Amino acid sequence: MEKAMQKEEVLKLLESLSRKDASYSSGRVLSSMCTSPHPIATEVFLKFIETNLGDTGIFRGTKQIEELAIRELGRLLGRENVKGFIVSGGTEANLMALWVVRETSKGREIILPETAHFSFEKAAKLLGLKLVIARVKKDKTLDIGDVKRKLSKNTSALVGIAGTTEYGTIDDIASLSEIALEENLHLHVDAAFGGFVIPFLEELGYPARQFDFSLKGVDSMTIDPHKMGLAPVPAGGILFRNGEYLKAVESKAPYLIEKNQYTIVGTRSGAGAASTLAVIKYMGREGYKDVVRECMNITFYLYAKLRELKFQPIKPEMNILVFTHPKVDQIAEKLEAKGWRISRTRQGEIRLVLMPHIKIEHARELLKDLKDITSEIQ
Amino acid sequence: MEKAMQKEEVLKLLESLSRKDASYSSGRVLSSMCTSPHPIATEVFLKFIETNLGDTGIFRGTKQIEELAIRELGRLLGRENVKGFIVSGGTEANLMALWVVRETSKGREIILPETAHFSFEKAAKLLGLKLVIARVKKDKTLDIGDVKRKLSKNTSALVGIAGTTEYGTIDDIASLSEIALEENLHLHVDAAFGGFVIPFLEELGYPARQFDFSLKGVDSMTIDPHKMGLAPVPAGGILFRNGEYLKAVESKAPYLIEKNQYTIVGTRSGAGAASTLAVIKYMGREGYKDVVRECMNITFYLYAKLRELKFQPIKPEMNILVFTHPKVDQIAEKLEAKGWRISRTRQGEIRLVLMPHIKIEHARELLKDLKDITSEIQ
Repeated sequence: MEKAMQKEEVLKLLESLSRKDASYSSGRVLSSMCTSPHPIATEVFLKFIETNLGDTGIFRGTKQIEELAIRELGRLLGRENVKGFIVSGGTEANLMALWVVRETSKGREIILPETAHFSFEKAAKLLGLKLVIARVKKDKTLDIGDVKRKLSKNTSALVGIAGTTEYGTIDDIASLSEIALEENLHLHVDAAFGGFVIPFLEELGYPARQFDFSLKGVDSMTIDPHKMGLAPVPAGGILFRNGEYLKAVESKAPYLIEKNQYTIVGTRSGAGAASTLAVIKYMGREGYKDVVRECMNITFYLYAKLRELKFQPIKPEMNILVFTHPKVDQIAEKLEAKGWRISRTRQGEIRLVLMPHIKIEHARELLKDLKDITSEIQ
Repeated sequence: MEKAMQKEEVLKLLESLSRKDASYSSGRVLSSMCTSPHPIATEVFLKFIETNLGDTGIFRGTKQIEELAIRELGRLLGRENVKGFIVSGGTEANLMALWVVRETSKGREIILPETAHFSFEKAAKLLGLKLVIARVKKDKTLDIGDVKRKLSKNTSALVGIAGTTEYGTIDDIASLSEIALEENLHLHVDAAFGGFVIPFLEELGYPARQFDFSLKGVDSMTIDPHKMGLAPVPAGGILFRNGEYLKAVESKAPYLIEKNQYTIVGTRSGAGAASTLAVIKYMGREGYKDVVRECMNITFYLYAKLRELKFQPIKPEMNILVFTHPKVDQIAEKLEAKGWRISRTRQGEIRLVLMPHIKIEHARELLKDLKDITSEIQ
């Protein structure tokens, strides 16, 4: 650290570096599960920028705001009366769930699908748990038969994914719930991405899926407002059916006014929680349904067009579209060169996340570029 | 989640709840290690609100900003060429350090002072490490003799605190560094609070303390820009002398453009990193020195006055002031009733953190209230 710089210089330096970032508003970022936050969320974030949910003795009002936000998330997911927190994101949320599992069960094995997010691997490594990977079926959802075969006396929990990161597929949570109840296991559902999508699909004419607390076996859920919820980072959500579980992960905070802490992280942004509540209240059910409708329309438009173009897209369940091609590596490279930010599945397929920042004109540009690329490489 | 609300209604609801929060600017919050962020930090936060350091394939510029911020923090702490991250806060930073320790050493025991922050307890519980608590001396700093006595073949790391949460005391890091080098142990220094204070103390006429990477045995340090660095939450800092350590905690992220992740948290606010760099560049060394001078002046003013008033303050090493009184419980209660937010040490003493939001007039009001209270309860 050296001499002070003038404000204008500082801003210029940051500006020049930020030009290397891609921006969601360019319509070219097809690889992210995050998007531009809603303007009301940004406005509220700024108002609450000083608040800290790690110190709720001071920020008593913001704590109540967090509780209201959790209640809204619970309502969206089939159970108003849940206990939970707005945390830094899905990774911390999944880590918290597995931590609770470790502290409240004797087993050390977690059965989860091979499509689970890599945060589970991180959590298992941190916590010393063993992941038992269950196969997925051809449709990329969990093979329930394989889960049953892998149950053992060491099993402590099952994990199902409602909206996988790679394919946007939804596991058969209803069957997992039955197994969890029969075998007395914790069932955690990772709906980090799907939590703000699946509740609206049936009304929009897509197949219905049970995936939430309305299933009695579901004990905890991850749902990230900063993904399809349009809240700014950091705003991950972790919900527990039964708040009693949380005692197992309580930390004592001797010098704080409020003495107990349950999250992994200590200092926590209250602005994330306030933004979450703001955007939920402002959008309401109908607002989010409109967002999902639009994302799904674009996803299925692309799906149909990609089929026409002889790509091999997987029929999407959500606003994630995966396709391949005999020359997929070349295509991916050329898309990147044209400024598209795409990602790849572990199988090498091209993966597109059709977030709200992707508009129909961007989809059309993408198709045009894909056409050009395929004729170039023929 | 139900019907949408009008924007004005939403803002009114949040406003009414936020009135229950204490605000730093009131000058009444004496219990927090956070403060109002610097205006330039808030301005920059807003510009970078979309960015995500969990996805540096998209946010390449913001990643470079983070690297610059880490370099500045390293410079402040005696070693420019460190490797590190802007994370959610000190708890995540300390957890990362202990995680690296667990993965890179055979032992399972961490020796740390009884004054260590409760995040170490949380981390040890998460990671399955054993904390070996070393005594502190009468001056509340680590008893180095006790550390030596507690060394065993299972020891994997030593932790020293440069600015304890409760007392603001600085452990003898130089001696810990020698032990660490002799015994080939990892030494982690928690300077979450002190990192932005101690580097300026000597120039301001306070006793000099070696505590940072200039000591060869120091392997990792926590320093939180969102405490005395005037950055907004979330902006914790974790620095490692040797980036090679980090391979031990690497996660593979199959679907991201950038494939490796090292932090506990996945999605990470780039706005925290950009704000950190902005405020460091804008303040410079001199700017922070001025902030520390002012905080120390108020701390020593209160120290002197409290002595006159027959309280028993502990001579402060930093801008944390602890005092007691035969009727300390009554006094604490009455201070709270008058709107002061104070905290208590584990020994029951009253603890005041003299952050930059505490001005001389607030200190005088506090003294006046303390005088009134003591005459009331006589």
